[in-house]
Amino acid sequence: MLDALKREVCEANRQLQRLGLVTLTWGNTSGVDRGRGLMVIKPSGVPYEDLQPAQMVVLDLAGNVVEGDLRPSVDSPTHACLYAHFPHLGGITHTHSRYATAFAQARCEVPSLGTTHADQFCGPVPVTRQLSEAEVAEDYEGWTGRVIVERFRGLDSLATPAVLVAGHAPFAWGRSPAESVHTALALETICQMAVLSWRINPQTPELEAYLCRKHYLRKHGPEASYGQKLDV
Amino acid sequence: MLDALKREVCEANRQLQRLGLVTLTWGNTSGVDRGRGLMVIKPSGVPYEDLQPAQMVVLDLAGNVVEGDLRPSVDSPTHACLYAHFPHLGGITHTHSRYATAFAQARCEVPSLGTTHADQFCGPVPVTRQLSEAEVAEDYEGWTGRVIVERFRGLDSLATPAVLVAGHAPFAWGRSPAESVHTALALETICQMAVLSWRINPQTPELEAYLCRKHYLRKHGPEASYGQKLDV
Amino acid sequence: MLDALKREVCEANRQLQRLGLVTLTWGNTSGVDRGRGLMVIKPSGVPYEDLQPAQMVVLDLAGNVVEGDLRPSVDSPTHACLYAHFPHLGGITHTHSRYATAFAQARCEVPSLGTTHADQFCGPVPVTRQLSEAEVAEDYEGWTGRVIVERFRGLDSLATPAVLVAGHAPFAWGRSPAESVHTALALETICQMAVLSWRINPQTPELEAYLCRKHYLRKHGPEASYGQKLDV
Amino acid sequence: MLDALKREVCEANRQLQRLGLVTLTWGNTSGVDRGRGLMVIKPSGVPYEDLQPAQMVVLDLAGNVVEGDLRPSVDSPTHACLYAHFPHLGGITHTHSRYATAFAQARCEVPSLGTTHADQFCGPVPVTRQLSEAEVAEDYEGWTGRVIVERFRGLDSLATPAVLVAGHAPFAWGRSPAESVHTALALETICQMAVLSWRINPQTPELEAYLCRKHYLRKHGPEASYGQKLDV
Repeated sequence: MLDALKREVCEANRQLQRLGLVTLTWGNTSGVDRGRGLMVIKPSGVPYEDLQPAQMVVLDLAGNVVEGDLRPSVDSPTHACLYAHFPHLGGITHTHSRYATAFAQARCEVPSLGTTHADQFCGPVPVTRQLSEAEVAEDYEGWTGRVIVERFRGLDSLATPAVLVAGHAPFAWGRSPAESVHTALALETICQMAVLSWRINPQTPELEAYLCRKHYLRKHGPEASYGQKLDV
Repeated sequence: MLDALKREVCEANRQLQRLGLVTLTWGNTSGVDRGRGLMVIKPSGVPYEDLQPAQMVVLDLAGNVVEGDLRPSVDSPTHACLYAHFPHLGGITHTHSRYATAFAQARCEVPSLGTTHADQFCGPVPVTRQLSEAEVAEDYEGWTGRVIVERFRGLDSLATPAVLVAGHAPFAWGRSPAESVHTALALETICQMAVLSWRINPQTPELEAYLCRKHYLRKHGPEASYGQKLDV
Repeated sequence: MLDALKREVCEANRQLQRLGLVTLTWGNTSGVDRGRGLMVIKPSGVPYEDLQPAQMVVLDLAGNVVEGDLRPSVDSPTHACLYAHFPHLGGITHTHSRYATAFAQARCEVPSLGTTHADQFCGPVPVTRQLSEAEVAEDYEGWTGRVIVERFRGLDSLATPAVLVAGHAPFAWGRSPAESVHTALALETICQMAVLSWRINPQTPELEAYLCRKHYLRKHGPEASYGQKLDV
Repeated sequence: MLDALKREVCEANRQLQRLGLVTLTWGNTSGVDRGRGLMVIKPSGVPYEDLQPAQMVVLDLAGNVVEGDLRPSVDSPTHACLYAHFPHLGGITHTHSRYATAFAQARCEVPSLGTTHADQFCGPVPVTRQLSEAEVAEDYEGWTGRVIVERFRGLDSLATPAVLVAGHAPFAWGRSPAESVHTALALETICQMAVLSWRINPQTPELEAYLCRKHYLRKHGPEASYGQKLDV
């Protein structure tokens, strides 16, 4: 079942490691089949270099395992919650990449300081509120998804395709598993650039709104001029 | 047409990735044929590892595509503007390399703090003014080239072979595509060294002018003693 | 003698280098056979890429060489002391990895600033007191072990599987040589993340105690849900 | 002539690049034959990956080329001066490695903050005074050597096997070309650790003198216990 999606998700997880976004087994990518309402995710704690498509685990969007011999990632309920609430998401990547995780720990949003940021994110990358003790006790991974959904009230999840979970780490997404990996890499990069810019000039200004919009639309709007027309 | 230049430009773009100067597809190198008044540039959004010489796009220096099946880099009008105004340029490289981009975001020029800088740049690496909303709306990529040209009034473009576009990222150049890649790498390196020097000693002085001149001329003047005589 | 353990220890030492945790020959991993009361450790000053299982040195837990043609790591008395006092340790790794060593030099414990830390360490990573001149003169490497043991009075060595020796560098451990290498890598990573978080927000708070506990138990308690049930 | 030394010097230069100590062609290693009073050095501006032993250049210790088709490194007079004044040196390495160069630009010596430093350097790594305009005009590379010699009055060149040239970059040395590369790598590493320690704790203390001495002698004194007895 879902063989093509399993191959895609498996390859996206292996790519996480090649891009230096994960340490040990700290990270996972999933993909969704919207027609069947099923998601495919990495098995928990399995090293990336050994991953095989047949090891991927299939779940429904309530977080129940539908197929697979191995336990799914412990973060599966968070992925399921995001797919259920954000209908345009095709893939989600969770990492503990170093700069983005440092922002999550610092509980600071990532402001748009340049066009590298604007090429990918139409505005700051937000940070969630912290979870209460009761939420952690009741359903930790599910509530992690719910505070993300709560934080995105009034935000467009495709124009801001990532979030920092306070005290934890980033979740990034896209229209496919591979695109969610690209978003995670872009996020890590702009986090590093923001830290460096502040070190060079603590008064680094936010990018002018008109330039922010221009760059975002150049890559993502209906009139996008970036890339090849065959790209989707 | 321009087969040798296409191979040279293709190889320079692949080298960008091997040197760690680009993330995803954020960067491009071009070259120019001065006799024909044509430039060759990377196609937009194509991964570096897949690039083939035949995919390179040929444009005139007004920015019109003359040959090629793929769309050229969105930054092509900036490259064309620089070739049109700076007659000694043979190659141009644009990256979003991390330290140089951080300086561009911080809108700070890179001062000459040591001989590593002076070996490549005879003075600070300048930063442009910001673009106005009207300029962005009218012809963003063309105006990016024009503010660079404006910033270089009174500067020698060969003695200062790079610039930081405010809020955006660096452009670097040289007598050939390969040399522009070397300049981009040197720029990234001296940006990192400047950040580190300030962290060690916030009062780090600028390099003595006589030492700056000595190092620059040792590598670049008519009496250059660096390298082999066969090198051009 | 102890051929399987020698292979395991040899491989763990080679892994240290592949993971970027060691420079030159600055680091060593050991393993213990609790039944025989013997430990196996890297020979001193031998490059990682040349290591062979037969070169590993066998010592008793008083630090006497029992088998081996080469001199053992100079840090062997420290390893022996830790095995003698902490009965659950199966492997120990000592490195001079950059961020963890910087914390040891700064003589600061590593606070728990996020779930990446909590996944591995149930509380701050402690730092020892400095050694006195008399202790250094009498038995430097043995006393290095004893000040670690002294620092762990009242701490659970499995819930806090690493320590920073003041002015020196980290020691990390686990149930096996390979696990001690993983702990050393996790420690290096959380040290880097802590430095970055402080740079972004000097007021970065410690992780909520209830979230700290949740993450630690998710990976390590009897009800651990992370990883596969076959994992040990 | 000097074929074995040429191979050794060639290999040491290639190692510089593999260890990440050099960017472009910014760095060179030399070796000396004390019996003949001749040194062997890298040719200027030749990429490391193409280097062949037969390309190495032979000079006398006054800096005159004795053999070789290519121009020697522009830094040859500095190397020659150091060999002439420090009789125990067998190899010298000059790099523009990032952290050590940042210290040289900041014109700060590198204090001994931990045992990683003490394992290699018995005290701080010193920085030279700046060169005067007259010295730069007269004989720049020769005077670079002379200010190093001046700075080492009262210092033991083997116990402190590196120096930072103010505004320029480090020179490191050892009993052989390969050992000088190791010293250059150790220097780069301790410079990074010092920057990080200061960031974690601006009051990071210097290592206790008795521990400094202990670590240095453990590796280098007549009673050295580190490494194998066959090592020289």
